[in-house]
Amino acid sequence: MAPPRLYLDWNATSPLHPQARDAVLRAMDLFGNPNSVHGEGRTVRAAIERARRQVATLAGADPAHVIFTSGATEAANMVLTPEFRMGRTPLAIGQLYYSAVEHPAVREGGRFSKEQTTEIPVTEAGVVDLDALGTLLAAHDKSSGLPMVAVMLVNNETGIVQPIADVAKIVQAHGGLLVVDAVQAAGRLKLDINAFGADFMIISSHKLGGPKGTGALITRGEVLMPRPLIHGGGQEKGHRSGTENSLAVIGFGAAAEAAVAEFLQRNEAVSALRDRLETGMRGAAPDVVIYGAAGQRVSNTTFFTLPGLKAETGQIAFDLEGVALSAGSACSSGKVGESHVLVAMGRDPKLGALRISLGFATTEEEIDKAISVFAKIAARRKPAGEAA
Amino acid sequence: MAPPRLYLDWNATSPLHPQARDAVLRAMDLFGNPNSVHGEGRTVRAAIERARRQVATLAGADPAHVIFTSGATEAANMVLTPEFRMGRTPLAIGQLYYSAVEHPAVREGGRFSKEQTTEIPVTEAGVVDLDALGTLLAAHDKSSGLPMVAVMLVNNETGIVQPIADVAKIVQAHGGLLVVDAVQAAGRLKLDINAFGADFMIISSHKLGGPKGTGALITRGEVLMPRPLIHGGGQEKGHRSGTENSLAVIGFGAAAEAAVAEFLQRNEAVSALRDRLETGMRGAAPDVVIYGAAGQRVSNTTFFTLPGLKAETGQIAFDLEGVALSAGSACSSGKVGESHVLVAMGRDPKLGALRISLGFATTEEEIDKAISVFAKIAARRKPAGEAA
Repeated sequence: MAPPRLYLDWNATSPLHPQARDAVLRAMDLFGNPNSVHGEGRTVRAAIERARRQVATLAGADPAHVIFTSGATEAANMVLTPEFRMGRTPLAIGQLYYSAVEHPAVREGGRFSKEQTTEIPVTEAGVVDLDALGTLLAAHDKSSGLPMVAVMLVNNETGIVQPIADVAKIVQAHGGLLVVDAVQAAGRLKLDINAFGADFMIISSHKLGGPKGTGALITRGEVLMPRPLIHGGGQEKGHRSGTENSLAVIGFGAAAEAAVAEFLQRNEAVSALRDRLETGMRGAAPDVVIYGAAGQRVSNTTFFTLPGLKAETGQIAFDLEGVALSAGSACSSGKVGESHVLVAMGRDPKLGALRISLGFATTEEEIDKAISVFAKIAARRKPAGEAA
Repeated sequence: MAPPRLYLDWNATSPLHPQARDAVLRAMDLFGNPNSVHGEGRTVRAAIERARRQVATLAGADPAHVIFTSGATEAANMVLTPEFRMGRTPLAIGQLYYSAVEHPAVREGGRFSKEQTTEIPVTEAGVVDLDALGTLLAAHDKSSGLPMVAVMLVNNETGIVQPIADVAKIVQAHGGLLVVDAVQAAGRLKLDINAFGADFMIISSHKLGGPKGTGALITRGEVLMPRPLIHGGGQEKGHRSGTENSLAVIGFGAAAEAAVAEFLQRNEAVSALRDRLETGMRGAAPDVVIYGAAGQRVSNTTFFTLPGLKAETGQIAFDLEGVALSAGSACSSGKVGESHVLVAMGRDPKLGALRISLGFATTEEEIDKAISVFAKIAARRKPAGEAA
């Protein structure tokens, strides 16, 4: 008989939060087009604008500065562009600098050409190298346009928190724009676009308990804006066209509201569970390497290598035991490539690493089961050096 | 007391079809990320691939040639681009020719510059002018790249059907690519991308009873493909990145399947209701102008002008009587502009026009109520020439 399943891959996607689920259920009866001026349309419009306020609260932003997109990847492609406008005047961005541990949605560079992108190295601790960033920006050729810097707030694989306020100071000193991918931070760190000094922030709904298919590009102001990626009907004040994904947006709003309301309680609980997990893992396999454990991480993520066990093999072994976790990120169809995050941190990517990520519904019983499965798999691996 | 509401704006958006609703409900428990290799991920992946087959059947296409997007507007922005690839080799499209009655999502030209777009006139009957198309393509400067032609299958405001097979012959004779916006045709005309001779077809989920937030770009082959609009994680075989919108996609598949299964029955019923409506309207106001009534229209749409009544005023009057219909299309936030469709047909756009559009749940009682509200509003309008 198949073992009952245990889901520990919350960084890949979260189950719907009960409040988001209820909101989606209710939204299924709001069938109007939010752009229609009749009653049915206005009802949906009101629900979308409520969601906008809920997401703005989560982001510490003005609701007028929340642009709903189809998700974080679209938001990244929208904002990462050399073509900006200041009001109606075109404004060029000359170069995109992104940290070596960014998500592929950012590393692909959006609408910048390969030549217009530069990688910012990270330290062995997985933290963006601030000196290197300063040096890069000092050498930036302003005749090509402003510099844009993209640094994520929390890494999706390791959970390591980046020093965004320090990054922002350097970017501002060089007159650049800062884009912060806050996808894995939302609900786990307090977001405040102004305190961060970010010009743009990206959030995804389905990583925080909302439905897939929506996310937001959040702006600090509305003066410097990217040329729209998707135009047509002129929705989202012309920044993003297409009939609004009302079901998902309404669920996103509810998930954001729940994340704010449950913030302290959820993170205290998850943090304790993660500590319990890592203590158990170290007890069962003292040679386990847990990345970023010495630095600042979000509460829910453990990224580790078990010497002698290839991540790909490990993932299948856990899956067969009923435990869903991931080898790196779940970003592209079935593909398990080398972790660019491990490479950027100067680690040997040969064995790869596994990621356990917890969420608001994770229980102590689940953690204890995860530890016992971990112990079982650790016990049967080949001696170090003979990776299976 | 507010009158019970009557929804006659199905071209703006459709209520969820019961089968789509059920599918979305079931999909709410499939919480995995379809790109994860564990069991939870594979379950969602299988559901998405089933939806792909359902949509392919509706489109008369190969499931391998269905690319899910966030909706029709994104699909249009994706395919309308001067940058194509033949396999890995770049291939330029020199000019986009679109009919004067296209939806704004196409008229905005996607990634073509204004200079790279040319409008194809339509006749007074609202049908694309085939001679003009031939003349334009004969004069096309092939040194700039191939020509691309975008002609919708069914107009969203009038319901007028375009002679796509004839358009395709002309486009093929000039070595061009044909993009067909089939958003308002899906479920109302039999779609067959091969029989149409279209290279690309665009469908939207929420116009045919699925959820908002998804649609598809359907290709006849996979040799000539647009440079991706949204890249990153490499989903949809690299053509469209971002975690798949599983809830909406699964609902879209179910709506497509229902549209195929109920095709004949639904269109016969709707067609009879539309005839009943127009007979009633002409009886109550013999001076009503119904556009496209003499030509080929889809079964569900009536686009009309009541002399002496401005469309904007009329829409509000109907809304106050509990009837939701539209003045032109519901494409952008609250904005009621001049109808470019009326202008293209050589009509005076001053009064504008109103659109009544029916759907699978429309009843005879609703039509009779609509006729009586129409008669009431027609009776109290000002004499012609004194538009309110």
